[in-house]
Amino acid sequence: MAGLAPDTPEHIFTVETVPLKYGHGALRELGHDIKALNARRVALFTDRHLADSEHVAIAREAIRGAGLDVVVYDAVAVEPTDASFRDAAAFAVDGNFDGFVSVGGGSVMDTCKAANLYATWPDDFLAYVNAPMGQGKPVPGPLKPHLACPTTCGTGSEMTAAAIFDFVSENVKTGISHRALKPTRAVVDPTTTYTLPVGVVCSTGLDVLTHAIESWTARDFRTRDYPADPGSRPPYQGSNPWSDIGSMKAIELGGRYLERAYADPSDHEARDWLMFASTLAGMAFGNAGVHIPHAMSYAVAGQNHRFVATGYETEKPMVPHGISVVVNAPAAFRFTASANPERHLEAARGLGADVRNLGPEHAGEALADRLAAIMRNTGCPNGIGDLGYTEADVPSLVKGAYQQKRLLVQAPRAPDEADLAAIFRDALRYW
Amino acid sequence: MAGLAPDTPEHIFTVETVPLKYGHGALRELGHDIKALNARRVALFTDRHLADSEHVAIAREAIRGAGLDVVVYDAVAVEPTDASFRDAAAFAVDGNFDGFVSVGGGSVMDTCKAANLYATWPDDFLAYVNAPMGQGKPVPGPLKPHLACPTTCGTGSEMTAAAIFDFVSENVKTGISHRALKPTRAVVDPTTTYTLPVGVVCSTGLDVLTHAIESWTARDFRTRDYPADPGSRPPYQGSNPWSDIGSMKAIELGGRYLERAYADPSDHEARDWLMFASTLAGMAFGNAGVHIPHAMSYAVAGQNHRFVATGYETEKPMVPHGISVVVNAPAAFRFTASANPERHLEAARGLGADVRNLGPEHAGEALADRLAAIMRNTGCPNGIGDLGYTEADVPSLVKGAYQQKRLLVQAPRAPDEADLAAIFRDALRYW
Repeated sequence: MAGLAPDTPEHIFTVETVPLKYGHGALRELGHDIKALNARRVALFTDRHLADSEHVAIAREAIRGAGLDVVVYDAVAVEPTDASFRDAAAFAVDGNFDGFVSVGGGSVMDTCKAANLYATWPDDFLAYVNAPMGQGKPVPGPLKPHLACPTTCGTGSEMTAAAIFDFVSENVKTGISHRALKPTRAVVDPTTTYTLPVGVVCSTGLDVLTHAIESWTARDFRTRDYPADPGSRPPYQGSNPWSDIGSMKAIELGGRYLERAYADPSDHEARDWLMFASTLAGMAFGNAGVHIPHAMSYAVAGQNHRFVATGYETEKPMVPHGISVVVNAPAAFRFTASANPERHLEAARGLGADVRNLGPEHAGEALADRLAAIMRNTGCPNGIGDLGYTEADVPSLVKGAYQQKRLLVQAPRAPDEADLAAIFRDALRYW
Repeated sequence: MAGLAPDTPEHIFTVETVPLKYGHGALRELGHDIKALNARRVALFTDRHLADSEHVAIAREAIRGAGLDVVVYDAVAVEPTDASFRDAAAFAVDGNFDGFVSVGGGSVMDTCKAANLYATWPDDFLAYVNAPMGQGKPVPGPLKPHLACPTTCGTGSEMTAAAIFDFVSENVKTGISHRALKPTRAVVDPTTTYTLPVGVVCSTGLDVLTHAIESWTARDFRTRDYPADPGSRPPYQGSNPWSDIGSMKAIELGGRYLERAYADPSDHEARDWLMFASTLAGMAFGNAGVHIPHAMSYAVAGQNHRFVATGYETEKPMVPHGISVVVNAPAAFRFTASANPERHLEAARGLGADVRNLGPEHAGEALADRLAAIMRNTGCPNGIGDLGYTEADVPSLVKGAYQQKRLLVQAPRAPDEADLAAIFRDALRYW
């Protein structure tokens, strides 16, 4: 571990973690928790698959049992769009709520964040959307209380300040990012994952792994410019001693439990730990930021409307977020390894690879190989080729990914368009 | 790592971390940070040694530079008493402040917490003091904003909900513990440690190590009773997957850097990392709790008014907090090891011991030996015997320690009075 000597442009990092409640049965305490935040009329966000689930029933009863009103919104789109965000915002504006609870995956939590934002601080839809798609206007103040309850062991949205959506007319994913979007509290009940199809556990678990490795390998916080004033330090600061701890722990837990969860869908211990790893990775990347694989994923998911993933057969064709990210990851880490070979080797070791006899020149290959093996062992598509992309699609994928400058600058080695094209080509197939 | 199966009385843990700013020059941003919390008239707490220091000057100028009023209180006692807490509270009541900044060690931060409490929610002094000494009344609501800025690499008070003092008439240490006492933000500038005497670095660093090992070995959170209602879950929950991460990282950093800091007082990298370890250990023990060594320390410090520690020559005779804790630790861990040998071995490994060929029956000895070696290598007194205690003092030390039931129940193996007597006798001398 290097020192923290201050002869660098930036030499300060900050940590603001969403308070967490983790454990079996945590959903049963939702009524107490949202009431303690002075809510009386609660919007409960979920999706149509979960609407009739035991989890949503438990949440609803807990809120009602505390003597509060609760209205369910279950029209959340899996992989939300600008249209589905607008619809949810209209519901929240009309409902005059003073508290929000989201029970679902990243799509549900992100939609709830956006609905809470537009209901609390109404404005044009594009006002808060990240530039260059939107105006990137800062959120004027705090939102209403929001308890975020993930039901998939991925995304980490319960810990982050972002809400991501598919901007359909522009054929690209983008989002809203501001501190104020962070949920008031994350309520993580791992028993919600026990009924998930194994395909969903693995696609979301691969997202966790990629979050963790991206924040572990993100540009060092000390290489950023010192901010003009302390309030303008960005929420995604680059890797730092605090985010490193959560990133590495999540890498280790993912490396240990993801293949187990695929091999035995009844392995609850594996799902418990993957759920915890997801939250840790959310804490880490919500602090350090992610980079190339996520930037590429926006194009990979945004330009594909043909793919049907295992475990998602009841949805319209689309690439689940975790898969859209991890298919780029081995190729991206082969590209970034030269910027910090020690960290890439350490990530490979954390995932379970034997790196004892490997020098820095093998760092990218070691990490890519171990990650590709985990993908192969958990039923993941073999690169973007398996999603239906070919060489001919590379230019338009590069165009989509290169728009994500906000993410690309977080890489330890920032790619230009030619670099991105080479990475996409390398990501066509891994085995 | 064991599973998280829910066939246990408790099966939920919570995490509420004090937001952190860490880095070189962080004190220069205090004006921005306290102004952002809407403070206009700020009380700056420090002690008489620090009052003329560069650090306090930087803090004062930063607050003034933001256009705010600042009044310095430098009458904080090193190892505070009920009288010194009352004096600080009177200052805070009279001053009509809307913001607090503390720059100093644990004594300064704890005094500021108490002053903020009594100024915000006036009551009899004993009302908020922990039972059985006081009435243990819950704090009625949030306190005024408080930025806590540690200047020693120990205590972790910037992360915790406690304010500790010496209750002189009762000859024992006790304190005030309530969530509301947690500072609004910790501002940790490691350059403040560069001018500390090496004796102070080491006594506070040994406190960090003991915090970390105690929270790592604390009773498993799942062995507590499920709370009558979710709001009554105690702030010190026992060891859990989240606190474990910070505890172990602090153990490893302490094991790596404490002896280096002693050997070379100009080793700034070692002090930077010890300062970070201190904050991590504060996060961990503020969440999991500490146990036997801290319970014993209250008696060890409270009954000794003869000892003069290296680096504290200008104070009235007293045992610095870190020393009063660590002198009990090897003996206490020998006692607790049988309750969870794997964790004690893992702590020894984290400190740098080679435990590869050791079985569980050697766990207590392995941890005690490595910890005693670090104590010896950093100029620490050789057990409570070096503080002037003898066999004849054991009964009164046991009486003092046994009053700390709040801490003793956090041990993985709760000691009775005979056990405490045996541990104190074992702690008389280590080498």
